[in-house]
Amino acid sequence: MSRPIITLTTDFGQVDGYAGAMKGIILGICPEATLVDISHEIRPQAVQQAAYILSTVTPHFPSGTIHLVVVDPGVGSDRRPIAVRSGRAIYVAPDNGILTLALAIDPPKMAVHLHAAQPISSTFHGRDLFAPAAARLACGADLCEMGDPISPAGLVTLSNLSPQRQPDGSWLGHILHIDRFGNLISTLQPDSLCGNRTLNLQHDPRGGNRTFNIQRSTFNSHVAVWVGGHRIPGLIRTYSDVAPGELVAYVGSSGHLEIAVRDGSAAAQLRVAVGDPLRVEGLP
Amino acid sequence: MSRPIITLTTDFGQVDGYAGAMKGIILGICPEATLVDISHEIRPQAVQQAAYILSTVTPHFPSGTIHLVVVDPGVGSDRRPIAVRSGRAIYVAPDNGILTLALAIDPPKMAVHLHAAQPISSTFHGRDLFAPAAARLACGADLCEMGDPISPAGLVTLSNLSPQRQPDGSWLGHILHIDRFGNLISTLQPDSLCGNRTLNLQHDPRGGNRTFNIQRSTFNSHVAVWVGGHRIPGLIRTYSDVAPGELVAYVGSSGHLEIAVRDGSAAAQLRVAVGDPLRVEGLP
Amino acid sequence: MSRPIITLTTDFGQVDGYAGAMKGIILGICPEATLVDISHEIRPQAVQQAAYILSTVTPHFPSGTIHLVVVDPGVGSDRRPIAVRSGRAIYVAPDNGILTLALAIDPPKMAVHLHAAQPISSTFHGRDLFAPAAARLACGADLCEMGDPISPAGLVTLSNLSPQRQPDGSWLGHILHIDRFGNLISTLQPDSLCGNRTLNLQHDPRGGNRTFNIQRSTFNSHVAVWVGGHRIPGLIRTYSDVAPGELVAYVGSSGHLEIAVRDGSAAAQLRVAVGDPLRVEGLP
Repeated sequence: MSRPIITLTTDFGQVDGYAGAMKGIILGICPEATLVDISHEIRPQAVQQAAYILSTVTPHFPSGTIHLVVVDPGVGSDRRPIAVRSGRAIYVAPDNGILTLALAIDPPKMAVHLHAAQPISSTFHGRDLFAPAAARLACGADLCEMGDPISPAGLVTLSNLSPQRQPDGSWLGHILHIDRFGNLISTLQPDSLCGNRTLNLQHDPRGGNRTFNIQRSTFNSHVAVWVGGHRIPGLIRTYSDVAPGELVAYVGSSGHLEIAVRDGSAAAQLRVAVGDPLRVEGLP
Repeated sequence: MSRPIITLTTDFGQVDGYAGAMKGIILGICPEATLVDISHEIRPQAVQQAAYILSTVTPHFPSGTIHLVVVDPGVGSDRRPIAVRSGRAIYVAPDNGILTLALAIDPPKMAVHLHAAQPISSTFHGRDLFAPAAARLACGADLCEMGDPISPAGLVTLSNLSPQRQPDGSWLGHILHIDRFGNLISTLQPDSLCGNRTLNLQHDPRGGNRTFNIQRSTFNSHVAVWVGGHRIPGLIRTYSDVAPGELVAYVGSSGHLEIAVRDGSAAAQLRVAVGDPLRVEGLP
Repeated sequence: MSRPIITLTTDFGQVDGYAGAMKGIILGICPEATLVDISHEIRPQAVQQAAYILSTVTPHFPSGTIHLVVVDPGVGSDRRPIAVRSGRAIYVAPDNGILTLALAIDPPKMAVHLHAAQPISSTFHGRDLFAPAAARLACGADLCEMGDPISPAGLVTLSNLSPQRQPDGSWLGHILHIDRFGNLISTLQPDSLCGNRTLNLQHDPRGGNRTFNIQRSTFNSHVAVWVGGHRIPGLIRTYSDVAPGELVAYVGSSGHLEIAVRDGSAAAQLRVAVGDPLRVEGLP
């Protein structure tokens, strides 16, 4: 049997020992676990950023993976620590909406309010509560033994992630994340707005890995994106379809509409920030 | 049998290949080792910072873990390369005081002055001396075969980590580390100053993981902390006990007295730096 | 048999989920792979920097290691995705010169133009093409099944990495990389210019790990380095041979000529940048 996989996504950074302490706890409980860092560089307490980044990786991990996610502004308050089983994975996290986007792709089937198995600190539940829970689940503990059952429908969700249809037929969303290359990732997921045909997106029928059928992708001139006071006409397939320095819109590798500058930074060129609005015309 | 664990703590950063080269060497000697990065983002040559961060993780790793620690301003000089066996772990490091805090929790039982097993470079003992030693120890080599025995009592220790009792009965320490959230971690460990009763700290009798009994923790109004020209009255249990923006003192997850701002940065608000003094009144 | 090792070197950073998605794909295909991060902090699209850093780690990994390298400005264009087998390793990368320095140490024996095994995205070949290829190779796939054979001699190479002999007999190179400590790593590899004798470098006869014979290393007063308008006389063995703050030249742990300031930053002191020229007099 394969070794269980635990991924880690936190805002603990990589200077301090916080992530390291969690790993020590996990390996003490479940020595055979394979640990995979997704990111410890989530901005402090940026639940929405973590929600997005988590959702870009979960579809690509093997079935049965445990995703441990700790961005937890409410540590020590009465926010619920939870574990959630979906069709493909188990998530261990605070109940603060951080799973919203991952569970939209991979819906929850069962959830529990985690019990602490021992006295715990008031400021570091990642180490004292979430890591032990993830480790026990990795080594075969039953979800039902880990806490009280709660309704998956009652989990906290982030409310501002759905683009809004405007009276003129355009869609209004916002910048969800700016990646290392200065690409702007928006809340708009064209595939979920308008079906596969128009934008030539295609889910992998083998499940899990979402891939795109580039053979059918072509410049889509019916669409235009407004962001930072600029209008970007059309959707292209990839950066190399345009000249260096040119501003482009396309459907990125996570299925979200993105804005980029070839060989440059769209964030720097447009002077925009996470949360700024972005509007799309011409989608069905 | 469990796979041996080697943790890595260095100031090599994550751009260069220095940590990667160490891992290649380790896996060549001991392929079954599980490698766990603690931090490669220690400030260059910041032995005290590394000593603190190491001490926050070592109690949480399984017994038998090997901690490889390379912050080594004296590379190429006559500072001793050492390996130290304690009750719970083996440490491989330069003898420059970097183990001071970890060994205060987990006292040394035996130490050797490491021999180099081959000709080595003059500038990268992490790769050429410490990594091979850690790997051989992970795969079962005896500590005694790795070098000449030396007295654990003769290891270099950092001298400025003990808070000083002042004539007025207060304790004077300093800021040991500022974490990613801007929290100030001080050299004061209330648990070691005044016992469990006053501050309601409690060691886990199962050993290893130090945990705190939050049930008994309450606001402690007898204590006040002076730092950066501010007086912070009382010790609280956790950030969520106060309003956003409020400055608080509490015993952090590593057992050290910490200063934080809820949903903010104490370091930015107080304009203090590592090394700045911090005084505590009202401790027994 | 040992578990296969896959190293990862990218410019994806550590905030986004790009590296995490690649790891999910790999573990789905080859669960027994040991994943080792070399760096995800290569400057965006900095092929030359990646080429250098890769070359500093590959000699230290066990034979059979697979090096997955994705710094890929040409993603979506017609640049070739390749896999290359050398005497010691397999490299999976875009054909953009990124393997130049690694293959100079460990020459290629066979190469293929990788086929995609499935429809892929236009912007993230790291996840959709390179990671699956590396994983299949790690789990035993034959290189010949992965794509069309191409000539190793026809691989793209970086053209500006060879120092030039000047009419006055000096060697002109440039700054290839500045490491975390502000050390300047140059394109000059004295060992390959003038043999072992003069500079007392010695390859490890056991192969793989390049080590230097410090016993024979001494101050070499015949050599002088010009960089940033300064003349640095002589080559020393290691930083601790000089006083703090002093500027020195030496042969670094990767075999390249380096400039450093003891307990300081040569880059800051000399105000130089990657690409700036560096000239060496007195080499044979």
